[in-house]
Amino acid sequence: MQALIYHGPGDKQWESKSNPSIGDPTDAIVKIDTTTICGTDLHILKGDVPTVDEGRTLGHEAVGTVVETGSAVMNVREGDKVLVSCISACGRCMYCKQGMYSQCLNGGGWILGHLVDGTQAEYVRTPFADNSLYQVPEGLSDEQVLFLADILPTGFEIGVLNGTVEPGDTVAVVGAGPVGLAAIMTAKLYGPGRIIAIDLADSRLERAREFGADETINNSSENAVERVMEVTDGLGADVVMEAVGLPATFELCTELVRPGGRVANIGVHGEPATLHLETLWIKNVTITTGLVNTSSTPTLLKLVSEGRLDPTGFATHHFKLNEIMDAYDVFADAAHTNAMKVVLSS
Amino acid sequence: MQALIYHGPGDKQWESKSNPSIGDPTDAIVKIDTTTICGTDLHILKGDVPTVDEGRTLGHEAVGTVVETGSAVMNVREGDKVLVSCISACGRCMYCKQGMYSQCLNGGGWILGHLVDGTQAEYVRTPFADNSLYQVPEGLSDEQVLFLADILPTGFEIGVLNGTVEPGDTVAVVGAGPVGLAAIMTAKLYGPGRIIAIDLADSRLERAREFGADETINNSSENAVERVMEVTDGLGADVVMEAVGLPATFELCTELVRPGGRVANIGVHGEPATLHLETLWIKNVTITTGLVNTSSTPTLLKLVSEGRLDPTGFATHHFKLNEIMDAYDVFADAAHTNAMKVVLSS
Amino acid sequence: MQALIYHGPGDKQWESKSNPSIGDPTDAIVKIDTTTICGTDLHILKGDVPTVDEGRTLGHEAVGTVVETGSAVMNVREGDKVLVSCISACGRCMYCKQGMYSQCLNGGGWILGHLVDGTQAEYVRTPFADNSLYQVPEGLSDEQVLFLADILPTGFEIGVLNGTVEPGDTVAVVGAGPVGLAAIMTAKLYGPGRIIAIDLADSRLERAREFGADETINNSSENAVERVMEVTDGLGADVVMEAVGLPATFELCTELVRPGGRVANIGVHGEPATLHLETLWIKNVTITTGLVNTSSTPTLLKLVSEGRLDPTGFATHHFKLNEIMDAYDVFADAAHTNAMKVVLSS
Amino acid sequence: MQALIYHGPGDKQWESKSNPSIGDPTDAIVKIDTTTICGTDLHILKGDVPTVDEGRTLGHEAVGTVVETGSAVMNVREGDKVLVSCISACGRCMYCKQGMYSQCLNGGGWILGHLVDGTQAEYVRTPFADNSLYQVPEGLSDEQVLFLADILPTGFEIGVLNGTVEPGDTVAVVGAGPVGLAAIMTAKLYGPGRIIAIDLADSRLERAREFGADETINNSSENAVERVMEVTDGLGADVVMEAVGLPATFELCTELVRPGGRVANIGVHGEPATLHLETLWIKNVTITTGLVNTSSTPTLLKLVSEGRLDPTGFATHHFKLNEIMDAYDVFADAAHTNAMKVVLSS
Repeated sequence: MQALIYHGPGDKQWESKSNPSIGDPTDAIVKIDTTTICGTDLHILKGDVPTVDEGRTLGHEAVGTVVETGSAVMNVREGDKVLVSCISACGRCMYCKQGMYSQCLNGGGWILGHLVDGTQAEYVRTPFADNSLYQVPEGLSDEQVLFLADILPTGFEIGVLNGTVEPGDTVAVVGAGPVGLAAIMTAKLYGPGRIIAIDLADSRLERAREFGADETINNSSENAVERVMEVTDGLGADVVMEAVGLPATFELCTELVRPGGRVANIGVHGEPATLHLETLWIKNVTITTGLVNTSSTPTLLKLVSEGRLDPTGFATHHFKLNEIMDAYDVFADAAHTNAMKVVLSS
Repeated sequence: MQALIYHGPGDKQWESKSNPSIGDPTDAIVKIDTTTICGTDLHILKGDVPTVDEGRTLGHEAVGTVVETGSAVMNVREGDKVLVSCISACGRCMYCKQGMYSQCLNGGGWILGHLVDGTQAEYVRTPFADNSLYQVPEGLSDEQVLFLADILPTGFEIGVLNGTVEPGDTVAVVGAGPVGLAAIMTAKLYGPGRIIAIDLADSRLERAREFGADETINNSSENAVERVMEVTDGLGADVVMEAVGLPATFELCTELVRPGGRVANIGVHGEPATLHLETLWIKNVTITTGLVNTSSTPTLLKLVSEGRLDPTGFATHHFKLNEIMDAYDVFADAAHTNAMKVVLSS
Repeated sequence: MQALIYHGPGDKQWESKSNPSIGDPTDAIVKIDTTTICGTDLHILKGDVPTVDEGRTLGHEAVGTVVETGSAVMNVREGDKVLVSCISACGRCMYCKQGMYSQCLNGGGWILGHLVDGTQAEYVRTPFADNSLYQVPEGLSDEQVLFLADILPTGFEIGVLNGTVEPGDTVAVVGAGPVGLAAIMTAKLYGPGRIIAIDLADSRLERAREFGADETINNSSENAVERVMEVTDGLGADVVMEAVGLPATFELCTELVRPGGRVANIGVHGEPATLHLETLWIKNVTITTGLVNTSSTPTLLKLVSEGRLDPTGFATHHFKLNEIMDAYDVFADAAHTNAMKVVLSS
Repeated sequence: MQALIYHGPGDKQWESKSNPSIGDPTDAIVKIDTTTICGTDLHILKGDVPTVDEGRTLGHEAVGTVVETGSAVMNVREGDKVLVSCISACGRCMYCKQGMYSQCLNGGGWILGHLVDGTQAEYVRTPFADNSLYQVPEGLSDEQVLFLADILPTGFEIGVLNGTVEPGDTVAVVGAGPVGLAAIMTAKLYGPGRIIAIDLADSRLERAREFGADETINNSSENAVERVMEVTDGLGADVVMEAVGLPATFELCTELVRPGGRVANIGVHGEPATLHLETLWIKNVTITTGLVNTSSTPTLLKLVSEGRLDPTGFATHHFKLNEIMDAYDVFADAAHTNAMKVVLSS
């Protein structure tokens, strides 16, 4: 088969590789119908994720068709259309039993396109298939469910659920990239009063409005703290989400939150931030962090199926799977191409 | 002033009565601008609520203007536009401290138009004004907030919150009268997958669709249990709400719920129901009951203010306050007049 | 091997049967070291559980040693000392993913000694071994963990957790049999203010005191409602647990609970109860039911291991496994033998 | 009357001052029977709390007797024995209605001995008496309830409840001063598996054992992270509490916590800490901060009353109220006097 293979920092190729095969009785082999590229893949290519070995097939998001299953697999069978989730779950360790699949102790968690070969290929072996693949409900297109592999559950679980958005809440989302937009879209499931998007780029803020933000603040030109205080009687937002991954934006979040409020960190951080405990200790705030568990995937699938959630708006560019090298170029140059998510179809 | 006074079963008059005055330092006097009639008022008039004395002014829902406050009142002052809630809260007993105002131990709870004179009058004395009146946000009409005095928080707290509606849930609401519709409207704040309304009258089911039901079942002609099982893979609904108040409808709810699901009773019951513990003991279900606390009123006000919730659709008929005897006739004959809520303005 | 086999109502034999063998890759074979008898086994023998076929080996509680595992089993291996739980869990269906193993959709739930051969035998095949067996922490005796197979998690999950016992609560437990005592013992994990045991037999109430009850009421001679009201300022208990399984005791529970309180049904019921909605609708109560999920087993094992919980007090009589016919006699005649739980060792 | 008055950094006097009198109808005047000194009082005297004006009577903890009440006070009356809580609550603002009294918007929160005259005096005026004073249950001594004015609810709410200690949890408490000990004592209300105290002083660690710690680590000589990992299978503690107030101890807490665990900050911080988001973002942790709300005071009073909690062990030294200058000396020199809490009686 053909696969997108990582050969060290800056070096990737769409090239031939032998087909994957069942190793463990809980494995499945999935033919990739549709896949996409994640910001994390770009980080890997920059060499930021040293746990990725050379020779690794990248990619951790896909919709595909099961072509073979191990002897212990019960939930899916040959021919099933499935969502391949970015998180694999053994389903039997302490963490998996609590639905915290990201911390799986038996070799699950984020492994696809990281510790084992991933989904940017014609076929993928998916470990722990019963707890890591999800049947696509009948009648849904690949593109309707593709983004449930990663960004939708990430925004929902790590932003909305960790931040415990509640009806009437004022929610501020710092960073209007794909994950920030996923947080905005899914925050609306909890009836917030007002969603405020904060970003440095007007183009992203425009999109934030399309995805459900009621108000936007460009904090290159406006003082975000002042603006948020103005619309919240001087208290601050009930819930603030960090969807950038920088010390400055994290620290901004802790200034935007009201006493008793919640700061949910979604961003991937490479360096420490300053935590102003000298003011925060008395503010009764809650700060959460997290890698997505994808425990909400069944819920999100139901919502797409019922027509409550439409994630197709994330797809800005479409390619054939074998055009993936071009797709990477477009995705990596989002500033010019305005790419949010690219869709690659076999 | 003029007031609607109860003179025993079947006997009410719109007649003259002396103006109320401040008794306790926590009292306020409110001039009624807009009020309405509740199904409970009809029950009182049938003699079903023996705790109501003859001579009592009825009514427990209003929007008005504060004209006088006791010396300890801090939150409202003369001239403020306020919502008069059906529940009064002392704010300092064990229950009030937990937000369970309905069970207030110091003389609060449902007292207006019940144990003290109510809101179907030109003026009302409101005990515990600080914890029982709510400032109406600027720019909102009386009619936008009037139904937050009772039916909206009742549907929301006793139906949606007690039933813990969650994103993706299948919610079945048995009874599509005003409170059932309020439950349907506010269930949408939690991103349910599908709302199913069940009633005996097609006219009410049509309204249920307007208020947000995705599906309707007329259980005079269809088997509600079978239909719900069909659309839930044979499991039953995640959340079922009883909004009628009869043994049969309650028992239906316990058949509609899936294992592990929740039954929220909202209906006012006059007789016992049968609880089929021989089948329910093993089903891991939760059943809740409750009188509204109105602890969600600030949240609901924010949602109306932000344009997220529009309860004006409940108002089907409008009267002047002094036409209240006619308004009662129209409201009591809902089967012919199709009245949901009548609005009485001074 | 030898096994205790059900041959229809009233007819059981300790007799020879062929050894179990691995069927599915997720199975394990466990040699039984220690087992016990449950009240449910007596019900089966009375013919009350028609889903039990003739020829079935009874028993759903044991501590044993793994002798063989299927190819997909990861968590246990030959030689491991394990707790065999009364509930089997596929670990991958909607319910298992939520920890509600009792409602497993793939053939788990209560199956041992019910739908498949059970633990009152020399060997047992345990389906879904990874999610249904628990490693016994080093240094613990069989008897220290045996009762975690059923009654401890039943009292804890269905009584204490469903009833949400909180620090300071007044907890009333109706029924002081083994499961009621397990509820009393584990209620103490949540720092209750006072535990009141209610039963008809003084001998059982004495035991309730030994297991942690602060007060006892013999409701053959005393009015339990009056006594509970006396010690709760006329309000009622915060949490009430039903551990009998009769309509009268369930109805008593609904009278004992305070407004805003919780009634947790643990008892196995054979007939419906009357639910007095005409008084309960306005009391803001929560009623729960449930079969144990055993999702708390890891927690309970940790507590036994840390010396926080000592369930050995439940064992009143000891037998060799091949004396099981005698053990049944003693257990079935608890009124005279004072048996709580019998321990059968290989 | 006599009162302990702050005259600027380093300067306090026990001197004459006019008796307080009722200002607002919600005020009460309380005769101080027993009071104590808090670490915060020492901070004020160092000049660390610039919001304290010269001339202020210090102290925010007491047990006393009501001598006069304003016209709107309902819960207490002349002659009642009451606990004077460190937090005053208006009972009617958004925060008070949610039980977050520390953030009261109407002039409550921590005001006694801070923004209004405090309890180290013969009499104190207590604003919002109904929501800020608590009836002392009959039969309890002043000393049994005195520490419920501040350190017990602080340890319980900000440590145990914010950290959501659950049965079986491994709990690490960094800092074994009075508040850390209060956290240890009240953590036991939730049935933890193991409590580990970490401090630099063996004398404090010894006390930690007396208050309920199962294990102690002196982190001047031992590597706390290594030790905690050893006893938690390399994962870390479920709940970690910071009870010191320094950047280094806070950062230690974030290293001690397991993936998915909770860090509850109780300490009062004067400078920022470093938050290692580069490792924490992926660990699914929750960090909380907070000033005590004292919303748990009724629960703690019930537990003392039921004999479940005995805080008298905190009292190491006893003085007459007019010996308060000496008491300050003893308390301020804890390193030599071994003082935990001093008790001052009228």
